[in-house]
Amino acid sequence: MHALLSEILDEVRPLIGQGKVADYIPALGEVPAAQLGIAVYGLDGEVFSAGDAQTPFSVQSISKVFSLVQAIEHSGESIWQRLGHEPSGQPFNSLVQLEFERGRPRNPFINAGALVICDINQSRFAAPALSMRDFVRRLSGNREVAVDLHVAESEYRHRARNAAMAYLMQAFGNFHNDVEAVLRSYFSHCALRMSCVDLARAFSFLANDGFCTHSGAQILSERQTQQVNSIMATSGLYDEAGNFAYRVGLPGKSGVGGGIVAVVPGRFSVCVWSPELNAAGNSLAGMAALELLSQRIGASVF
Amino acid sequence: MHALLSEILDEVRPLIGQGKVADYIPALGEVPAAQLGIAVYGLDGEVFSAGDAQTPFSVQSISKVFSLVQAIEHSGESIWQRLGHEPSGQPFNSLVQLEFERGRPRNPFINAGALVICDINQSRFAAPALSMRDFVRRLSGNREVAVDLHVAESEYRHRARNAAMAYLMQAFGNFHNDVEAVLRSYFSHCALRMSCVDLARAFSFLANDGFCTHSGAQILSERQTQQVNSIMATSGLYDEAGNFAYRVGLPGKSGVGGGIVAVVPGRFSVCVWSPELNAAGNSLAGMAALELLSQRIGASVF
Amino acid sequence: MHALLSEILDEVRPLIGQGKVADYIPALGEVPAAQLGIAVYGLDGEVFSAGDAQTPFSVQSISKVFSLVQAIEHSGESIWQRLGHEPSGQPFNSLVQLEFERGRPRNPFINAGALVICDINQSRFAAPALSMRDFVRRLSGNREVAVDLHVAESEYRHRARNAAMAYLMQAFGNFHNDVEAVLRSYFSHCALRMSCVDLARAFSFLANDGFCTHSGAQILSERQTQQVNSIMATSGLYDEAGNFAYRVGLPGKSGVGGGIVAVVPGRFSVCVWSPELNAAGNSLAGMAALELLSQRIGASVF
Amino acid sequence: MHALLSEILDEVRPLIGQGKVADYIPALGEVPAAQLGIAVYGLDGEVFSAGDAQTPFSVQSISKVFSLVQAIEHSGESIWQRLGHEPSGQPFNSLVQLEFERGRPRNPFINAGALVICDINQSRFAAPALSMRDFVRRLSGNREVAVDLHVAESEYRHRARNAAMAYLMQAFGNFHNDVEAVLRSYFSHCALRMSCVDLARAFSFLANDGFCTHSGAQILSERQTQQVNSIMATSGLYDEAGNFAYRVGLPGKSGVGGGIVAVVPGRFSVCVWSPELNAAGNSLAGMAALELLSQRIGASVF
Repeated sequence: MHALLSEILDEVRPLIGQGKVADYIPALGEVPAAQLGIAVYGLDGEVFSAGDAQTPFSVQSISKVFSLVQAIEHSGESIWQRLGHEPSGQPFNSLVQLEFERGRPRNPFINAGALVICDINQSRFAAPALSMRDFVRRLSGNREVAVDLHVAESEYRHRARNAAMAYLMQAFGNFHNDVEAVLRSYFSHCALRMSCVDLARAFSFLANDGFCTHSGAQILSERQTQQVNSIMATSGLYDEAGNFAYRVGLPGKSGVGGGIVAVVPGRFSVCVWSPELNAAGNSLAGMAALELLSQRIGASVF
Repeated sequence: MHALLSEILDEVRPLIGQGKVADYIPALGEVPAAQLGIAVYGLDGEVFSAGDAQTPFSVQSISKVFSLVQAIEHSGESIWQRLGHEPSGQPFNSLVQLEFERGRPRNPFINAGALVICDINQSRFAAPALSMRDFVRRLSGNREVAVDLHVAESEYRHRARNAAMAYLMQAFGNFHNDVEAVLRSYFSHCALRMSCVDLARAFSFLANDGFCTHSGAQILSERQTQQVNSIMATSGLYDEAGNFAYRVGLPGKSGVGGGIVAVVPGRFSVCVWSPELNAAGNSLAGMAALELLSQRIGASVF
Repeated sequence: MHALLSEILDEVRPLIGQGKVADYIPALGEVPAAQLGIAVYGLDGEVFSAGDAQTPFSVQSISKVFSLVQAIEHSGESIWQRLGHEPSGQPFNSLVQLEFERGRPRNPFINAGALVICDINQSRFAAPALSMRDFVRRLSGNREVAVDLHVAESEYRHRARNAAMAYLMQAFGNFHNDVEAVLRSYFSHCALRMSCVDLARAFSFLANDGFCTHSGAQILSERQTQQVNSIMATSGLYDEAGNFAYRVGLPGKSGVGGGIVAVVPGRFSVCVWSPELNAAGNSLAGMAALELLSQRIGASVF
Repeated sequence: MHALLSEILDEVRPLIGQGKVADYIPALGEVPAAQLGIAVYGLDGEVFSAGDAQTPFSVQSISKVFSLVQAIEHSGESIWQRLGHEPSGQPFNSLVQLEFERGRPRNPFINAGALVICDINQSRFAAPALSMRDFVRRLSGNREVAVDLHVAESEYRHRARNAAMAYLMQAFGNFHNDVEAVLRSYFSHCALRMSCVDLARAFSFLANDGFCTHSGAQILSERQTQQVNSIMATSGLYDEAGNFAYRVGLPGKSGVGGGIVAVVPGRFSVCVWSPELNAAGNSLAGMAALELLSQRIGASVF
């Protein structure tokens, strides 16, 4: 597996230079482009990695999965009164659909949906940012995982569009806490810094019927785990979920920091990272690497 | 398996009466509501069934999968120059997205996409309706499969919205044949009458890496098969694909005739039928039956 | 007035070369760009003109006013059950709003609304194209006014988007006649050839409380005349009605043939023509000429 | 005129009970419904009135005209770099068009446009709320005009949708000041309390080529006055501007407090008030009263 991962990174490395590092938030644009890493976490706890697999990066939207899992843990099915689990067919930050569908986001992985999930968690936790950080430390088994306050602050300063979404949902009665406070929590989650190894480990319970081997905890039930995976499969890669299913065939979640996590149920979790993004906002080299991996080892669920 | 299928039908039968038979086309509205059938086709060729599994019904949008497979067979990847494979996040017959995205349908399972696929096939086959009928006869191993001309004619008379889509795509240069002729082919495909057993058998190659056991033909490559399944998984159930993935966890395709076909890769194909639909246009009892089946035997791909 | 009109044409003539002759229909693109004419028709029947005021051109959307007046003549207020008289805030040929508002066009001067008006007239007249031609001959006092069959045929061949609109309205139950037949009538109206003098004269009743001086006929009541003028004022210049009101301050109607007609209630009607269009599809030099005229003689109704 | 106004109020009074007092802001819903007043201000300074013409009410969106005039006074044509003067064809508080048109509002009388105007004024005035109050006092000649702080606070508490718009424009770079501060100014303007007499007088300069007789000040140039009137004519009555032009035929501006102001250029300004609104958010009895007035005295500009 080590050899395969190295070989795949070598094959996709030429793509570096053809994408574009996210720069809509200044602090993200400072990341050097020429980085590439991958880590695979098998169900028996063995880790395989290659490239910059130990380098922490900004998880950004990958954190939306952690928020969703937290919300399911404490509130279960009731969260679906506030949002759906359908693909959106729209850019991740559009307000158009949100207005037509009267403030009810289509799924928890577009920004509006993630904000509703944060609003739900805000009502539950005294210190949502700390609860999240500690939850992710447990999942990843890495007590060093931390929030990049510089990134969080930069995102907050550029919060306008997310604020617009939150206020629009409030106008429809689907936002219960103070908008500014929830945005602070939301950006804190996005600004978590984790490596490919951290993320592969943290997602391993989703490949393992909800059970987290290294911590010995049942995070979700088997059924809930399938449900979270199904939402990643239909809505996990912004407006490119269909293409990810077509090319890779796995439940996955991406972030504009350049990370993509994917899950092969019953086998392993994997995280790839390269900061340059394609037009849809997903890691260019990362998509290619996962496609190769999926094909070489027959990992597609389809 | 026989016992399980019967048991499942008994459990979901009380749902009959809570849905609504499609009646936007008069000929469809004539179907008696209280029918329910299921058929499973294993990779070894064994068929299990219960209820009205031998009764032919109007396949409607399930035919969109056959059209897509035909197009992939003769034109391969080039078809994606004309349409996408992303979920639409819109009702199946909306023109809004089609106008914003300049006549390029999001996927082959919304009406606009299926019309483009028919347009592609129209350019290829001298007699598209006959080619399709014969293709489906081979796939299902049933030489009696036929088009219900009464239904096809009724659909043609109520073609207005589909005609609007086709003309809109023509206005954007993405429709090459005579609109009326393609609509005739399209409705002919929709009006095919097949039973649950026919459809389970016809879809079996999608559970078997593209190989059709009973005819001995490789219909698609293994990779193409995964790709078709991925599109069914993200876009196969109108604006309820996410919910189907969440509840059932399988690639599938539904029709307003009340049929739903699903595929368990490497294991079996299944078709369920009950004419009453839910608000999203999918068989109410059919969804429930597939959810039970998937859970009872652990069939979810997630 | 003659001197003023010549002076205005001289001032705006330098704009020729900065616009673009409509070419989405090939037959329209053949018109030489460097033409410019203006005609004013006073209520006493005196005509003032300058430039190419006698040259016939394709009236295109200006015919939508004639269709509306015909429909009001025979059906009165009942036509507003089928469409509105609100500005659309959208490009003239968009289907988006039409779908959201369930097949009811916003006003009679966007294409969808004009098609509904033609559908209404189609139900009333045995030969709609001839009725229209004769109506316009009476209004203009020019028995030579005729349809350019070459243009009408070219428009029909490029009918796709208008066909899409008509079929979409049919899908919503707001289109009663055969789509192809109504489109034939519609393009026949658009392809009428009239000069600035013809059009100024034909619109004079709208400046004169509905009374057509040269034919001695009361075409509309005073109240109906104000209503038609109000619709021109809020919706007469595609998606630039607000700008026309802001710059010119008169009820008016434009066509992609490069003509613009305007009405100064109680004083005169005016038609200007120059084939090159601005980005909104209105005659570039024509807008400028009407703005100068309106300011020089204090014609704004505001 | 006194007799005519009384007669008109008697004719429309039966409509009271058929509309609905605005209640989306609690403080507005407290206004007794059965009130009706009208005031006409002639260019010679004579005032005619009937009914509750001296009762102050919440001007709400009528204040958008004052804000626009302030912005034109200090910034002239440059304001049109930030917004348009086209009708929107959308509900007054929609974000859909704003997203498609990248944060540039269609006109100054939809909420988004009024917020941009307030943002422009916020950059200019040290105390925008006071500047506005004093401006309106001068225009109306009533030094008692004041802001209803209870209403302003209630509106601020229910600011979610307006906040969403402002943040969306900020995301597109079209909002320069602190959102909360501009919203405070905006609601302060909306919460001004004025009577029909106050408003008729305050709008009189728009009927008088920009000259305010009672204060002796030229507020706008003749050309600017026509331009403001043109925008009222095409966009002044929410999504019913076309209907107001059709029925009344005058530039006008309405507010959800139940007031409607209209201008007869060269003759008079008029304000009518009745709190119950129709479905489009305009005073039900007010529309009817202005229609009668316009017809009885031939006031339509068309």
